[in-house]
Amino acid sequence: MISKIDHVGIAVLDLDAAIDTYTRLGLPFLGREVVAEQGVEVAFFQIGESKFELLCPLGADTPIGKFIAKNGGKGGVQQVAMTVDNIEAEMQRLTAEGFTLLQQTPVDGAHNTRVAFLHPKSTEGVLLELCEHR
Amino acid sequence: MISKIDHVGIAVLDLDAAIDTYTRLGLPFLGREVVAEQGVEVAFFQIGESKFELLCPLGADTPIGKFIAKNGGKGGVQQVAMTVDNIEAEMQRLTAEGFTLLQQTPVDGAHNTRVAFLHPKSTEGVLLELCEHR
Repeated sequence: MISKIDHVGIAVLDLDAAIDTYTRLGLPFLGREVVAEQGVEVAFFQIGESKFELLCPLGADTPIGKFIAKNGGKGGVQQVAMTVDNIEAEMQRLTAEGFTLLQQTPVDGAHNTRVAFLHPKSTEGVLLELCEHR
Repeated sequence: MISKIDHVGIAVLDLDAAIDTYTRLGLPFLGREVVAEQGVEVAFFQIGESKFELLCPLGADTPIGKFIAKNGGKGGVQQVAMTVDNIEAEMQRLTAEGFTLLQQTPVDGAHNTRVAFLHPKSTEGVLLELCEHR
């Protein structure tokens, strides 16, 4: 079951500058973490039951590095993640509903999560993530 | 004060098709509404304490129509709205913090709200909306 927006993932060019920006916005800063598997450093801010995750690429040849290149060298919303209780069950349900998944099995995400992505072509152009907290 | 993500606004090309997509995702459909002032028809889905708002332009010369044109004719996340209790106070606070607002006074939004936008240049590329419920 999908219970809430887990986080909105925002690609940024300069993580220190972006942390300053979202701190000035008035949101609580929760910390930062390198997710080597995804080639990204992430900073977290709480907003209600959800988070903003600022995603800064560790190199050009990473998912976020490529997103920024395709986006004309600019940052922006790269993904919207939804909290699920049982990721395998959701992947099976959504495949049966006609959605295209980018992974056949969940991969490791930040904050001790297991994640999988729905292809934007099957979700009106939005990279939707399923996110299960261990 | 910012309390939560009010909604994630997603530009779509075909509202009926998009409603079908997000219904298959398993989220509760809350209804649809024309917001003539913004040149858009909106469909709402509940997700936790937040909503997904599907935004379909009523013409090419509207904010969402122009977003889709700039986005290579495709839909996608166009805005992220944050619930605020007192929009004038937040606009004043964020201006003092160095953010650029697109409006000097709030304008009418969907669902009986008053809204104002922060310029993406001051928010790492994200069109952030402040949203006060009347």
